[in-house]
Amino acid sequence: MPYIQDIETCRETVIGTGGVSAGALDAALDAAGPALDRLRGDVENGRLPALAIARSEADLGAIEQTAARLAAACDDVVVLGTGGSSLSGICYRALNPVNSGPRLHFLENVDPQGFEDSLTGLDLARTGLLVVSKSGTTAETLSQAFALIPRLRTARGADGLSQATAVISDPPAAGAAPAPLRQLAAELGLPILDHEAGIGGRFSCLSNVGLLPARLCGIDPAAVRQGAAHVLDGLMSGAAPADIPPALGAALNVAIARERGLTQAVMMPYLDRFAPFAAWYCQLWAESLGKDVVATTPIAALGTRDQHSQLQLWLDGPPDKLYTLIFGAPQGTGPDIAPPEGAGPGLDYLAGRRMGDLLAAEQEATRETLAARGRPVRVFALPRADGRAIGALMAHFMAETILAGDLLGIEPFGQPAVEAGKVLARQKLAAMGGGPGNAGSGRGRAS
Amino acid sequence: MPYIQDIETCRETVIGTGGVSAGALDAALDAAGPALDRLRGDVENGRLPALAIARSEADLGAIEQTAARLAAACDDVVVLGTGGSSLSGICYRALNPVNSGPRLHFLENVDPQGFEDSLTGLDLARTGLLVVSKSGTTAETLSQAFALIPRLRTARGADGLSQATAVISDPPAAGAAPAPLRQLAAELGLPILDHEAGIGGRFSCLSNVGLLPARLCGIDPAAVRQGAAHVLDGLMSGAAPADIPPALGAALNVAIARERGLTQAVMMPYLDRFAPFAAWYCQLWAESLGKDVVATTPIAALGTRDQHSQLQLWLDGPPDKLYTLIFGAPQGTGPDIAPPEGAGPGLDYLAGRRMGDLLAAEQEATRETLAARGRPVRVFALPRADGRAIGALMAHFMAETILAGDLLGIEPFGQPAVEAGKVLARQKLAAMGGGPGNAGSGRGRAS
Repeated sequence: MPYIQDIETCRETVIGTGGVSAGALDAALDAAGPALDRLRGDVENGRLPALAIARSEADLGAIEQTAARLAAACDDVVVLGTGGSSLSGICYRALNPVNSGPRLHFLENVDPQGFEDSLTGLDLARTGLLVVSKSGTTAETLSQAFALIPRLRTARGADGLSQATAVISDPPAAGAAPAPLRQLAAELGLPILDHEAGIGGRFSCLSNVGLLPARLCGIDPAAVRQGAAHVLDGLMSGAAPADIPPALGAALNVAIARERGLTQAVMMPYLDRFAPFAAWYCQLWAESLGKDVVATTPIAALGTRDQHSQLQLWLDGPPDKLYTLIFGAPQGTGPDIAPPEGAGPGLDYLAGRRMGDLLAAEQEATRETLAARGRPVRVFALPRADGRAIGALMAHFMAETILAGDLLGIEPFGQPAVEAGKVLARQKLAAMGGGPGNAGSGRGRAS
Repeated sequence: MPYIQDIETCRETVIGTGGVSAGALDAALDAAGPALDRLRGDVENGRLPALAIARSEADLGAIEQTAARLAAACDDVVVLGTGGSSLSGICYRALNPVNSGPRLHFLENVDPQGFEDSLTGLDLARTGLLVVSKSGTTAETLSQAFALIPRLRTARGADGLSQATAVISDPPAAGAAPAPLRQLAAELGLPILDHEAGIGGRFSCLSNVGLLPARLCGIDPAAVRQGAAHVLDGLMSGAAPADIPPALGAALNVAIARERGLTQAVMMPYLDRFAPFAAWYCQLWAESLGKDVVATTPIAALGTRDQHSQLQLWLDGPPDKLYTLIFGAPQGTGPDIAPPEGAGPGLDYLAGRRMGDLLAAEQEATRETLAARGRPVRVFALPRADGRAIGALMAHFMAETILAGDLLGIEPFGQPAVEAGKVLARQKLAAMGGGPGNAGSGRGRAS
């Protein structure tokens, strides 16, 4: 098993009235049956490639080839993309921080100072570029590309730029013109990988969007897919919802939020290498379900750090959160932490211990302390914190989110509300002084 | 002015019933008057050194001297500490990411793998150590120190270790034995700086806890204090609460949460260099006020990134959040983002623009889009994103938090609930197999 989900400290019978009652959970599990059937039908009929891709090997050759090309040409690779185009790659990078391949630099923002800070110290003649935009029209990503490509072309030459670049974007719809990013890539001879059809940004972690950066970081794409396939096999198995972890998780989230009035869902890994996983989860949950007032708000945290930041609020503040903790298997690992002579009395509890023992004690203590106050805590235990484990967790949470959407009557795949802001930003930009429509502009259009 | 606070898009008259009514805000401002008087009295009587230290220069010499000693001896400095002992230092480091001084590495956790990852590639013979624990008893920090000090002593020798190390911890109370960290430092000859008396961890950003790392990163401690002193001067000025930004901010937070049932407070800088500031704020707000069910939960975000992650939920999800955005002054700055030839049509809005123009348009569009849905948005505008600005913001939010605590009847300075978890973790550690009390232990006690 790549992971074990344990919801015991979410039950009313264990933690009291902060927990979910057996009746409420059973009712949600009953509803999860038909939801699971719909999900299975979607997988079988090709309508859910985000999960079905776990069983595919068809694109692994192209990922491998592209990664090898970039690794040969680059000491550093700048990754342009934001949201679903960056978060899974950041997760994979964190999983192998001492990798010997090219260093990846994820540029997610358009803060000019942050942009320059990120490029400081890079040898542009040995720097490559990965540009990820599903639509090929993302303003932030296009702007970053327009700013960076001329510099890279100056440093590497046109052929060198082409050799060190990859673009991931949707192919044009039948009869439609290619999006700006694809047109630019064609104009400059930059190799293009198609964004997998029918997979939205935040569900793209198992596609080339996530797995090309993974491969560059030394994480094996096949292992990630194997972990995800394990979860997919469970979903398709025909087992009862209570025996399928993502279905149980979806039922728990929906039932306990409804019954206990929870408004927030905290995701707290206790492994440094899984720290960005919480941010990935937050996008997945928020953008997929944040379309109705019943949606809970995801919150990213990190253990043990946030015991010294948020735990006070979690214990004495409002009882409005479901906590999901991700535990590794640290006991008995890591350096000695025995007190040296001269450190004084009161430290017997550290004598003979290793750092992993302390972590194991802390994560269990947090769970028990929260549970003792009636705060519901779900635990994911990872026997090994590797590519297979993260693939399994990603598939778990994608399925859990889709199933929760079904239970709540929320369509999980769009993000309709953010369009208004994008339009408004473009209008504001067009209306600024100094632009093409204004007299006295010293900065002419390039075309 | 280091910053300008603008609460217009929090008012009912501007955004509709999601905003605070004039009556509710005025009532909170009336209550803020006596709260301000109490705060002024505390500053004058020496009971609020966390803010009063803004006017001090007494310890700047020791900070300067220690920073110079470490900088001369180190290419890298590992900072051991967690929560209030690390978060402000991380904020200062982010403010000057291309600094020429020693690189700081903040180790906040006890994940053995993350611990080793953080040390990978460091030349221990040129690595120094800063250990920060107010109590001198923090289990995580002591464990890290016990694991790391023997390695550094091997690499540098005892004298070299002493030369490259600083410890910040409370002096012992009169008649009491020194805490373990101070005993260890005395035993090994490690220089000690006293943690400023009467300043709790999360309020220590203006003391040597924050300003020694700041100085190592090339941020001028005097400039930080000047920014904070500007805020303190306003607090002490005798002006009306509505004209003192932290008092207005406290009244807004309390009034709008009560009137509109808000449960969450989002902090979203649009400057990459202020990204960790949101995490600092989250600890300050959560640990100070998370002692009653009326406390709102702080949530860290970053623009523009989280427009592609959280904004969908913020617009269509439950109306339960107050948004605080921090804007820089990016317009007209940064690289050209004009579309090159061949990028295709539909990009006129980028023609003649620079990256900062896009950021300026995006941050304003987010504010207006949220406000148009009746979601309350407060904006802090920073003319310059420098040490003076962050000092001012830190003083603002410390004062705002203290005043909000007064308005809510919550004592902001302790964190009583987390003690139970600490005790439980020690018990679990002591009860593990393989320890000193167990037969068959292969790892003996050091003393």
